[in-house]
Amino acid sequence: MFECLVNGEISTFVTTTNRGLNYADGLFETLLVHNGRPRRWQAHMDRLGAGCERIGLVMPPQVVLLREVQTVSAGLVDSVVKIVLTRDGQSRGYMPVENSNCVRIVSAHIYPDGVTELARVGVRARICELRLAIQPALGGIKHLNRLEQVLASAEIRETDAAEGILLDRENHVVSAISANIFLVMENRLLTPRLDLCGVRGVLRGHILAGFGQRCEQRRILVDMLLEADEVFICNSVRGIVPLTAIDDREYKIGPVTRELQTWLLEGTSAPSTW
Amino acid sequence: MFECLVNGEISTFVTTTNRGLNYADGLFETLLVHNGRPRRWQAHMDRLGAGCERIGLVMPPQVVLLREVQTVSAGLVDSVVKIVLTRDGQSRGYMPVENSNCVRIVSAHIYPDGVTELARVGVRARICELRLAIQPALGGIKHLNRLEQVLASAEIRETDAAEGILLDRENHVVSAISANIFLVMENRLLTPRLDLCGVRGVLRGHILAGFGQRCEQRRILVDMLLEADEVFICNSVRGIVPLTAIDDREYKIGPVTRELQTWLLEGTSAPSTW
Repeated sequence: MFECLVNGEISTFVTTTNRGLNYADGLFETLLVHNGRPRRWQAHMDRLGAGCERIGLVMPPQVVLLREVQTVSAGLVDSVVKIVLTRDGQSRGYMPVENSNCVRIVSAHIYPDGVTELARVGVRARICELRLAIQPALGGIKHLNRLEQVLASAEIRETDAAEGILLDRENHVVSAISANIFLVMENRLLTPRLDLCGVRGVLRGHILAGFGQRCEQRRILVDMLLEADEVFICNSVRGIVPLTAIDDREYKIGPVTRELQTWLLEGTSAPSTW
Repeated sequence: MFECLVNGEISTFVTTTNRGLNYADGLFETLLVHNGRPRRWQAHMDRLGAGCERIGLVMPPQVVLLREVQTVSAGLVDSVVKIVLTRDGQSRGYMPVENSNCVRIVSAHIYPDGVTELARVGVRARICELRLAIQPALGGIKHLNRLEQVLASAEIRETDAAEGILLDRENHVVSAISANIFLVMENRLLTPRLDLCGVRGVLRGHILAGFGQRCEQRRILVDMLLEADEVFICNSVRGIVPLTAIDDREYKIGPVTRELQTWLLEGTSAPSTW
């Protein structure tokens, strides 16, 4: 971690009464920042705002968050900035104060190695045994309750897979552990609806906006993974990453995945994930 | 909050990289402490141990936790002590280190007012609209992913109810928001099985151990609340609290609830909730 601001002050500490710590009562965003400009800023702010509305937080002014993102990433060409918002207030007792204010934690982290290479060669994935719980009250937003993702990650530790595929309890495909997923079938894009669980990724939204005509959001049963021509995952940090295998089913990296990667690069000057 | 220890040192801060804060990657316990003696210590430690095993944490030595509980509650006749264990390690990336160590946060809080009175007169409850997600991987343990409970608490804010009743997505009764629930039907006790969601409360376990012959753990459909003769809720801090109403259905505080309250008091010298 490079620099960190807590409520605008340089600090790497929060109090032990913080409700994010005690109850996962909060939200987060992870953004790419290039020379002080956060990538797809408005989309991140829109999702954060939707999350605040869902759990009853007063969204901090975007201009405040932007200034803090720029402060922590100052001097870095490329960095990953994480924004965590937790509900302010006392830690004992679940009851939240109505329209609560937030504690803001904004921190800059190193831009990971190998992103361009992974986008080129792809990664292998496995279907995790853990099934995501169905919770429409939290579906789509990027809240702090991530123990499912932690346990799913432990499943692929020390395997040949770099990613896990998450299904819900009804065996629908939801996402990768830390990325959204798209299937290519007969030149069309399919991606799971995320109303019951999962996170509506910013890059997923960007692809849906750009390729709406060729893309369908729908329930995807696990067997459809076998039938797909190409499969890729995407998130804000890693961009579009082809999957070369899911369990024993191998995939060739195909023309549609490459077309989207190229499209994503157009009009941007730097990292290939943009 | 009175005193707080973080990894044994007096502190009210954790780092912003703490995995409990970032991913709710941890567990907690809330205990009553009377003159330095934590109530039902071994049962709390057993549940914490079960949680550690489930999510892959190395449980800190009980003697270390006990010493820290006694340190933070020193000089207080009655207090509530909260133990939070979070996985140690880096904050970016869900992947946990195998058999991770914990960050220990042990804090003493004021013993709440009015506990004895609530146990005497009971409280009104409402059935929350939020449905608990079904997640057997986390069912029963007291993990930090509590945003569901926060949102359910917001539902009963500014109502005449002091507690919310939580159902799962299949309309089974699971618990109150921060307590377990028992129904009395024809002189028998019924309490929900908690394998799919909910927390296996320490006082619930104590009641099951003491009244096993008269008590059944089973799936409880919401309609059974209407048919119950008595209903009570219980947790470690508040003891056994009768419900006088759930929505429009009113209950008399009955002989079985009083019998259990008296039984709970036997052999203890202090607060009526013990």
